[in-house]
Amino acid sequence: MELGSLSTPSLVLSRTVLEQNAERMKSRAADLNVQLRPHVKTAKCRQIAKLATTGNTPSITVSTLTEAEYFADAGFQDIVYAVCITPDKLDRAASIAKHTQLHLITDCLSVADDVANHSSSHRVFIEIDCGEHRTGVLPESDELLQIAERLTKTQRSRLSGVLTHAGHSYACRNEHAMRAIAEEERAAAVLAAERLRAEGYEVPIVSVGSTPTACFAEHLQGVTEMRPGVYLLGDLFQAGIGTCGLEDIAATVLTSVISRNLQTNTLVIDAGGLALSKDRSTQSTDFDAGFGRVARIDEGTPMDGVFIHEVHQEHGLIRLPEHLNAFDFPVGTRLRVYPNHICMTAAMYSHYEVYGTSLQITERWPRTNGWT
Amino acid sequence: MELGSLSTPSLVLSRTVLEQNAERMKSRAADLNVQLRPHVKTAKCRQIAKLATTGNTPSITVSTLTEAEYFADAGFQDIVYAVCITPDKLDRAASIAKHTQLHLITDCLSVADDVANHSSSHRVFIEIDCGEHRTGVLPESDELLQIAERLTKTQRSRLSGVLTHAGHSYACRNEHAMRAIAEEERAAAVLAAERLRAEGYEVPIVSVGSTPTACFAEHLQGVTEMRPGVYLLGDLFQAGIGTCGLEDIAATVLTSVISRNLQTNTLVIDAGGLALSKDRSTQSTDFDAGFGRVARIDEGTPMDGVFIHEVHQEHGLIRLPEHLNAFDFPVGTRLRVYPNHICMTAAMYSHYEVYGTSLQITERWPRTNGWT
Repeated sequence: MELGSLSTPSLVLSRTVLEQNAERMKSRAADLNVQLRPHVKTAKCRQIAKLATTGNTPSITVSTLTEAEYFADAGFQDIVYAVCITPDKLDRAASIAKHTQLHLITDCLSVADDVANHSSSHRVFIEIDCGEHRTGVLPESDELLQIAERLTKTQRSRLSGVLTHAGHSYACRNEHAMRAIAEEERAAAVLAAERLRAEGYEVPIVSVGSTPTACFAEHLQGVTEMRPGVYLLGDLFQAGIGTCGLEDIAATVLTSVISRNLQTNTLVIDAGGLALSKDRSTQSTDFDAGFGRVARIDEGTPMDGVFIHEVHQEHGLIRLPEHLNAFDFPVGTRLRVYPNHICMTAAMYSHYEVYGTSLQITERWPRTNGWT
Repeated sequence: MELGSLSTPSLVLSRTVLEQNAERMKSRAADLNVQLRPHVKTAKCRQIAKLATTGNTPSITVSTLTEAEYFADAGFQDIVYAVCITPDKLDRAASIAKHTQLHLITDCLSVADDVANHSSSHRVFIEIDCGEHRTGVLPESDELLQIAERLTKTQRSRLSGVLTHAGHSYACRNEHAMRAIAEEERAAAVLAAERLRAEGYEVPIVSVGSTPTACFAEHLQGVTEMRPGVYLLGDLFQAGIGTCGLEDIAATVLTSVISRNLQTNTLVIDAGGLALSKDRSTQSTDFDAGFGRVARIDEGTPMDGVFIHEVHQEHGLIRLPEHLNAFDFPVGTRLRVYPNHICMTAAMYSHYEVYGTSLQITERWPRTNGWT
């Protein structure tokens, strides 16, 4: 089937661009001499995770226990669940850990006690705050050592290492700033690991990661792995801050013109707040893209000046720029929308429609969404 | 199971509040002497649609053909698909119409031709623009009569009537303004119907609808049905503009504290941009609620001054006000989030966890999401 014949809205994925993105980050990890443990919270798809990983025991990062279950079922044997664990989730985690090596994370003394006293053994990272101040303990804090002590005191659970995420790299608007944050991220993780080792703890894994810092780190000495994720699919925000080009955006939303107004030169499409998400991350930047930028289906990058200006649940409004005329976009015309933030947009779809260089749909790859 | 024992995040629904909301709108429709055709794009659930409707042939409105299929399978025999049809969707619509009375809508001359010439017969509304200027033809326009003529010229398809949606009522901030918009909506639909009847067309259904105009219309003379939807579940935006109270919000997100910072008096919860949506509709109002307001699980309304200030994919950040202390919210504490816009939030969940007055979960009701 041709891409243009799919029902709309659909989430369409260029296998060619995806593979290029995957290979580029594999090379980057090799150059930095670290293991690549891609965060698959963006892709949520076993086929994509397989393309993104290497080796006999490919390692991945997930954001929900539902993802952990799905990827364990798919044969992934080394999984980090990179959202702080709560005591009530330990039974479910233990059940997953029967089939795969599952690592949890925490930044909390009382949770460390709960893990240590739980009936099952767990592998646990201590989360480090490298400057984002969202979650994690400071690398120089007393809590770091206290959590390690409590986690390991019953000798049932073991310390996997330290893990940090420089989410504040998303606020950077140039390479210089991203390099600086990447060094903060590296230094915080390495300092935490060194302090734990000085106290006699084994720290097998020192884990950092975000797409901006993975792209711009000058070196990762002392780090053993990195966990970028969004680079696999790319989006307008990432293109705007320079971690990819527009031509590296692999996933877009196929949509149809459903109404138009020739007087106001406006198109209405069948991709609205649900099909695109209401993410407005580009708003705070110099490259505000509304709710997405619009391309013709056979062109690899968006048209100049064509944005989604407004969304309702199932409607998107495009006010065309002067050099384009709504007359040339009759009802039924297929378009593609480049999303602001693909993690949010892709989450609305049960699967990807995968196409090759000829714009023929070759496969349908399922995603795992939700929490149960 | 108790509500507080569910895994998090979960979408939880008070059956008591839902039933009150459903009954209130049924009474309202009876008072206005119109048929109630609830828009189930918010609920996307057969159990809720059944509670919301009456009679032997309950009528509903849907926003996707996937919903139309799901509700037709559930036995609903009178369905309006209230998003402009495109020619390529006519085959799928015809297939659904074998099992139910499915009405389509259009505002386009060329689509009217496509419908008339399609191999199957269809029931079609002409969409009227009553002032929102999103889709629809103006009630006084030539296009109105031209579309009617083209739709019916082959005598295969038939005109269901006229349909309009006063989406601009969402911009109102007081009852007076909403009453005025409700009258615009009514008058536009009735004018269009009268013009068509003057030309000899039968116009069996004159359909209006939005929750604000359904709540505040002074009368609906000449209208035969109304299509409000969000009133069934309610949300902070609707409470803010006065179509419901906080105590009428039926669906909330159950979440857990996963991390906290006692120095900054901040909580981090496991409901982020996916579990809550990134809708910020309350931002443009006097009652900005961040990404949602937060309640204790056993209290019927949100705590004063407790908002979700920031969301990441699976993390939500709450900066507690001075009168509350993060110390009193240990990791694992369950909270409930009142959503800004329930249509967006609910779409992230495969089902509702339904509870009664005792906060015991009594049922799990599935939702139909997506487009395929």
